[in-house]
Amino acid sequence: MLKVIAQDFIKPEFIEIVLPLYAELVEKTKLEPLCIAYDLYVDQKDPGHFVFIEEWPDRAALDFHCQTEHFTRLVPLINGYQRQDATFILMDAFAA
Amino acid sequence: MLKVIAQDFIKPEFIEIVLPLYAELVEKTKLEPLCIAYDLYVDQKDPGHFVFIEEWPDRAALDFHCQTEHFTRLVPLINGYQRQDATFILMDAFAA
Repeated sequence: MLKVIAQDFIKPEFIEIVLPLYAELVEKTKLEPLCIAYDLYVDQKDPGHFVFIEEWPDRAALDFHCQTEHFTRLVPLINGYQRQDATFILMDAFAA
Repeated sequence: MLKVIAQDFIKPEFIEIVLPLYAELVEKTKLEPLCIAYDLYVDQKDPGHFVFIEEWPDRAALDFHCQTEHFTRLVPLINGYQRQDATFILMDAFAA
């Protein structure tokens, strides 16, 4: 299992433009057969701070996602409205 | 619905000490009747970077969690081993 937090930071004046791009990205990614979870949230203190919480069976599934038509088309479009680079945390489940 | 990402940064030499504290915190928090999700992950690039992904029905439930016996006892113990302050992101579900 691979858990991912991906964080985007969008310029305030472009938030309305990215909303349908995010909606399509979430809808199409959830249809990927290897996608376990791909949910998008918005920071209550910053409406341009978008946070994906993702779950994939393994790194290969994440890499496949990053090569899909919807990812390679929509993510560069979204990134054009960024105010700073996106961040990514790849995580394992905690085991005491 | 309230989604929360809480991130702790523990000094490398104290990771083994905090593991059972985290285990107890997760176990007891999951038993709180208002807890929807409370899962802990570890950054693949940084074994001292612990990430909670939480879900609560509302802010009142999160505030109640922060007043429980297990939280008020275990979190200050864990924080004693921090290398930097914890961070918190409170989020709403994305709606296009």
